[in-house]
Amino acid sequence: MTGRVYLVGAGPGDPGLLTLRGAELLGRADVVVYDRLVSGRILDLAAPWAELIYAGKAPGEAALDQKAINAVLIGRARAGKDVIRLKGGDPFVFGRGGEEALACAEAGVPFEVVPGVSSAVAAPAYAGIPVTHRGLASSFAVVTATGAGGSPTDLGPVARGADTLIVLMAAGRLEAVCGRLIAEGRSPDEPAAVVESATSDQQRTVTARLEDLAARAAAARIRPPATLVVGEVASLADRLHWFEPMGEPHRTVWIRAGPGE
Amino acid sequence: MTGRVYLVGAGPGDPGLLTLRGAELLGRADVVVYDRLVSGRILDLAAPWAELIYAGKAPGEAALDQKAINAVLIGRARAGKDVIRLKGGDPFVFGRGGEEALACAEAGVPFEVVPGVSSAVAAPAYAGIPVTHRGLASSFAVVTATGAGGSPTDLGPVARGADTLIVLMAAGRLEAVCGRLIAEGRSPDEPAAVVESATSDQQRTVTARLEDLAARAAAARIRPPATLVVGEVASLADRLHWFEPMGEPHRTVWIRAGPGE
Repeated sequence: MTGRVYLVGAGPGDPGLLTLRGAELLGRADVVVYDRLVSGRILDLAAPWAELIYAGKAPGEAALDQKAINAVLIGRARAGKDVIRLKGGDPFVFGRGGEEALACAEAGVPFEVVPGVSSAVAAPAYAGIPVTHRGLASSFAVVTATGAGGSPTDLGPVARGADTLIVLMAAGRLEAVCGRLIAEGRSPDEPAAVVESATSDQQRTVTARLEDLAARAAAARIRPPATLVVGEVASLADRLHWFEPMGEPHRTVWIRAGPGE
Repeated sequence: MTGRVYLVGAGPGDPGLLTLRGAELLGRADVVVYDRLVSGRILDLAAPWAELIYAGKAPGEAALDQKAINAVLIGRARAGKDVIRLKGGDPFVFGRGGEEALACAEAGVPFEVVPGVSSAVAAPAYAGIPVTHRGLASSFAVVTATGAGGSPTDLGPVARGADTLIVLMAAGRLEAVCGRLIAEGRSPDEPAAVVESATSDQQRTVTARLEDLAARAAAARIRPPATLVVGEVASLADRLHWFEPMGEPHRTVWIRAGPGE
C-alpha cells in the first residue's frame, strides 16, 4: 500500500512554534527529509526508528537537487512509507512545496500540507514588530532577496506594493536591496529592521532608517539567515521588543538612528 | 507579583495548526480572552479552572471594545494572573495584537507574542494553492477587504503590489473587491479562488477567472469567513487540492471557468 507524503512547515526555528499536527506526524513518520534551516530540537521529535535524510539547500549548495528530493519522496511513499518533507517556515512560502506537491500529484502519491508559522511574520514579531498596525500599515508584502536559482530578485515591482515590505534571505545582499528599494520610491527615512536568526537563542536585531540600515547591519556583522522589514511598523520595535534570547541578552543589538543622524 | 500577557495566535481554525507553545500556555493560563473565530476545540485545551472571556469581534459587533479588552488584560495581569489573549490566525496579522502589546508595554505589564499560522497562507494551502511557486509567483501581498473600523479598504495601492494577492475577510464585498482589482490593472482573466471556512470541516472553495469569481461565489452562496486569492498560483488548485473536509466531501465545491467561458 502506498504511503503518504506530508509537506510540513517546521516554523521559523523556535521548536515551540511547530504545530501540534507537525509534532504528531513527526512522532510517527517512517522517513523525514529535512532542510538545512530546520532546528535539531525539532528533528529530535522524530521517531527513533525514522530514516532522516538531509536535503541541504545551503546557499550555493544542495545535498540533493529538487529532482532527487522528489524521487526520494515518491520512492519511499511507493514503498509504503509515510514520509515527512520538513521545511523551515511554511512549505508554500518560498519553500518549493508546490513543486513537490505537483510531483506527488503527478505520481499518484497522496499528500497533505501542514502549514507552518512563516518567518515572514514571526521574525518581525520576535523583534517586536507587528507587520500590520492600525494607522501605520494595513497591508504587507513578502519577497525573497534571492530567487530559487540563486540570482537576485527584481524588487522593483514589489518595492512599494504594500505598507510593510518583508524581504527574506536578505543578509547577503542588504546594501543592494535597501538601495534598490530607495531607488524604487521607498523613503530613505523609513524605519527598517533586520532580524538575524529570528526566534533562536542567537537572535539579534538592528534597527535604523532604511538608508542607514545596511551599514549598521554590516557594522554589527549581521549574518544569514536574516529577515528585513521595511515600513513604519519597524518603529514599534523600540517599544515592543519582548524576546530575550535565553541566557545571552547581550546578543540583542539595538542600533537606532533618528532622522538626520 | 504581576502576571504576564501572552498574545497567542490560534491559527486558521484546524486545532492541529495551533503551535506547541500555544497549547502549552493554554493548558496553564489563568485567564483566556478569545475572539469569535477561535475554534471551540482549541478553547477545550484551556485549563478547567481558567476564566474564559469572550471578546467578540463579529462584523459590526464587539462584546468588548478595544479599550475594554486592554483593561481586562492589564487588570488581570496586575492581579497576578497569567493571561492569554487568543486570536484567530496570527496576533500581528490584522489582529490588533500590536495595539494590545503597546497597552501592556505602557502599563509596565510583561508580555510575550506567540505567532500563529496565518489564514493568509493556510487558507490557500488547504485549497491546494501555494502563495509562491517557481515560474508563477515570487512574491505575495496580504490585505483585508474591510479596515479595523469596518469601512472598505482602499485596495488601489496593493492591487498590483505582488504576484499573488490575498484578501482576507473578502466574502461580504467580493464583487466590489474583484471589480476594484480589475480596475487597478489586474487581468480579468487571472485565476482566482475564494476559500470559505478554510481548514475547517465546512471548507468550500470556488475557483474562477477573476472577472467571474464574485458571481460564481454568489451562486455557491459563499459566506464569511472567506479568503480571496488572486494570481496565477490559483490555477494550481485544480491539481493540488488535497483537503477533504471530514465526512462531508460534498462540501468542497469546485467551480472552474476557462477563458472565454
